[in-house]
Amino acid sequence: MSPKALDYDSLNENVKKVQYAVRGELYLRASELQKEGKKIIFTNVGNPHALGQKPLTFPRQVVALCQAPFLLDDPNVGLIFPADAIARAKHYLSLTSGGLGAYSDSRGLPGIRKEVAEFIERRDGYPSDPELIFLTDGASKGVMQILNTIIRGEGDGILVPVPQYPLYSATISLFGGSLVPYYLEETANWGLDVNNLRQSVAEARKRGITVRAMVIINPGNPTGQCLSEANLKEIIRFCYLENLVLLGDEVYQQNIYQDERPFISARKVLLDMGPPISKGVQLVSFHTVSKGYWGECGQRGGYFEMTNIPPQTVDEIYKIASISLSPNVPGQIFLGLMVNPPKPGDISYLKFVTESKGILESLRRRAQIMTDGFNSCRNVVCNFTEGAMYSFPQIHLPPKAIEAAKKARKVPDVFYCLKLLEATGISTVPGSGFGQKEGVFHLRTTILPAEEDMPAIMDSFKKFNDEFMAQYEDNRGYSRM
Amino acid sequence: MSPKALDYDSLNENVKKVQYAVRGELYLRASELQKEGKKIIFTNVGNPHALGQKPLTFPRQVVALCQAPFLLDDPNVGLIFPADAIARAKHYLSLTSGGLGAYSDSRGLPGIRKEVAEFIERRDGYPSDPELIFLTDGASKGVMQILNTIIRGEGDGILVPVPQYPLYSATISLFGGSLVPYYLEETANWGLDVNNLRQSVAEARKRGITVRAMVIINPGNPTGQCLSEANLKEIIRFCYLENLVLLGDEVYQQNIYQDERPFISARKVLLDMGPPISKGVQLVSFHTVSKGYWGECGQRGGYFEMTNIPPQTVDEIYKIASISLSPNVPGQIFLGLMVNPPKPGDISYLKFVTESKGILESLRRRAQIMTDGFNSCRNVVCNFTEGAMYSFPQIHLPPKAIEAAKKARKVPDVFYCLKLLEATGISTVPGSGFGQKEGVFHLRTTILPAEEDMPAIMDSFKKFNDEFMAQYEDNRGYSRM
Repeated sequence: MSPKALDYDSLNENVKKVQYAVRGELYLRASELQKEGKKIIFTNVGNPHALGQKPLTFPRQVVALCQAPFLLDDPNVGLIFPADAIARAKHYLSLTSGGLGAYSDSRGLPGIRKEVAEFIERRDGYPSDPELIFLTDGASKGVMQILNTIIRGEGDGILVPVPQYPLYSATISLFGGSLVPYYLEETANWGLDVNNLRQSVAEARKRGITVRAMVIINPGNPTGQCLSEANLKEIIRFCYLENLVLLGDEVYQQNIYQDERPFISARKVLLDMGPPISKGVQLVSFHTVSKGYWGECGQRGGYFEMTNIPPQTVDEIYKIASISLSPNVPGQIFLGLMVNPPKPGDISYLKFVTESKGILESLRRRAQIMTDGFNSCRNVVCNFTEGAMYSFPQIHLPPKAIEAAKKARKVPDVFYCLKLLEATGISTVPGSGFGQKEGVFHLRTTILPAEEDMPAIMDSFKKFNDEFMAQYEDNRGYSRM
Repeated sequence: MSPKALDYDSLNENVKKVQYAVRGELYLRASELQKEGKKIIFTNVGNPHALGQKPLTFPRQVVALCQAPFLLDDPNVGLIFPADAIARAKHYLSLTSGGLGAYSDSRGLPGIRKEVAEFIERRDGYPSDPELIFLTDGASKGVMQILNTIIRGEGDGILVPVPQYPLYSATISLFGGSLVPYYLEETANWGLDVNNLRQSVAEARKRGITVRAMVIINPGNPTGQCLSEANLKEIIRFCYLENLVLLGDEVYQQNIYQDERPFISARKVLLDMGPPISKGVQLVSFHTVSKGYWGECGQRGGYFEMTNIPPQTVDEIYKIASISLSPNVPGQIFLGLMVNPPKPGDISYLKFVTESKGILESLRRRAQIMTDGFNSCRNVVCNFTEGAMYSFPQIHLPPKAIEAAKKARKVPDVFYCLKLLEATGISTVPGSGFGQKEGVFHLRTTILPAEEDMPAIMDSFKKFNDEFMAQYEDNRGYSRM
């Protein structure tokens, strides 16, 4: 009998081509070890609550009340919920068309899109149109939707930073497009050099690729760098001249751990530049409730905002969103709360500020502890995490280690990370999952383990690494680019 | 300057080809009228809570507590939550890896997949493997994922019932495949005749299409019919002989309004048939929390279960699911509660049963009121809604009405439904959105308006319809197939 449609050999080839390292071999092995009873520290995904971060109280109170609207009439409700949470729950319920159990418009609830627009206006100093904001089940879903709209076939190229977050490579493969890499400069603190961009586009064109869009991740994932205003201007001018859609992955905009380069949105820089550029570059910006000091990953709330996108295209994106009816409504409420948190004078304000500041300040300290820890290890160098949630140290693997990896039929960084996992329970992602230059090896870890556990984790890493290096190093020194 | 990537002319053609009538012209016009202050009865989407159906209390209590785990330690929690809801919330929190704010495994929480497997075993009498159950953000997302895995290009055909739920036509267009229609027999109560299937496959093959999969919707959407066991056997035998994956859309399995044909799952019939058929047909079955007596559409919870799918393919589907990290976790909890509701003896049992029975019995009465109402109208005939949530009357449009529609550049049923909307505020979906035979016209409405409003709605429909017919009919009679 001929193969069946869901036999491996006859699946959609694009599905098979996809690689997704964040939950790849390392994650699967870690899950096995966990089943066998080993204690695993999952630092492969930016998943703060899984590592003990407590949810912010106020938004959880509001969403709990929205889930249980019958409580709003309960005479005892005031005993366990503050008045401003009750008021806010009533507000959000009034924005729905039947509570959390009713589908919303496929773009999300109009009232929440309005709150998002007001947030963007406050942030950037330019008005934002709720009709150009679509709520999504997390930012990833939005990115996938936009790339699906842009990519027509393998002749269409998308510029993606390398190292990159594999959402982009995976989605581009899935939709049958071509990834056009541009390299970030590790020695310049993972900076973006526009000359690299030009070169990447020129090379892609030689291969017959039409470069259609450019992705920036700011702050960077996995690299943690924050783009300066000057750099953003260069990028936007480049997109204007090369006629590229700019996709601004800004999900880490609240996660900033230095003061020299605060977050500045691509949209603000674009609009500051004035015409013709401010009218000429198509921009889609992404945000989420999964990151920041919220970390509400499991709720799957996000949005994208479109600038300079023609109405006919917006209608097409709306039509495609309609196929799956609506993003989840509780996630939309979280998004509303994120863009519209308690204000000074509100009952819950002080608690909210204390909680959120506590999380951010601890993340800043952890970024420092981790960078310092890695830099104290033999054959490891690591840029400081300026923003986002990751540390991305370079590991100089000795030739003998590379040979041992070859024998084990593993990519060298996968080999290293698997050994690290087996020895310490620390579950990281090998740098090859994000793309890197030939012969250079990294790993990515989140900075999310609890602050009090951090010293022990870094000690355990150092012990493993230094033993590993002792085992594989000989007197001739180590491989170094 | 050349067109930009997000200009309409340069978008992915598959995106542009997609049609999605459930939120199409009628819905957009209804939204406009609502903004202008007209009272609209949205019967275009099966969205029970939007039409006033109250959520079931117990699951909402559990999920509210999961959202606010700090309440579990509050000495007053027992004043507003019953003990079994508190216990259940603790149970589900223990299945997460960090509460509702943490990403779950991309297939969903293992503990909930186990509860789903137990439910399936109780329902079908055969064990089910949690590793072959994936939780999704609603059933639609699952259907899209599976079709994306199957469809390699326009040479791949998917058999879809006509009339059909446009999720299928839209998704097949989006992924660049070919829809192969098979017609349901309106005069045989929307029955499925295997001879029609054979004919459809033969015709598709003549056109060079490889038919890869077959969709059944049971109970039917928009047609409401329930498939008999004998019919399911014929279908499965057909899939076996023709080497087709069977996709079983069973989201309305709790919505049954007659006693002759209770719901029976495709999986049970398949396994009852024994080898070689029970081992030879690849089956994916879909279910959701959006329908049944739950109607928790906005929560976006669903699952699919795979039977006879090779492990390597399951791994590929897992990999693709990983790109968007995890389905929303609150929706997963709702799914757990749906497959594992309160049991006799639980504090909340009686209330839960009263609520759920009340909803189902009212739906059964509403199905009858609506069918009878349509059948009392001039030039309207309507099969009884055996299951699901829709009524799908045929409207015999007089030739003059068809001419008037042509003049207005509208498809005749769209013309009729727009007039209905303007006159009465009833927002339906024209039958052409679901596909129908040439020259035959229908509309789809849900049976979800509140029972007490139903007589007035049907009166208002009858008044509109009879006036419409009087306006367009002449003495020569009307168009009839």
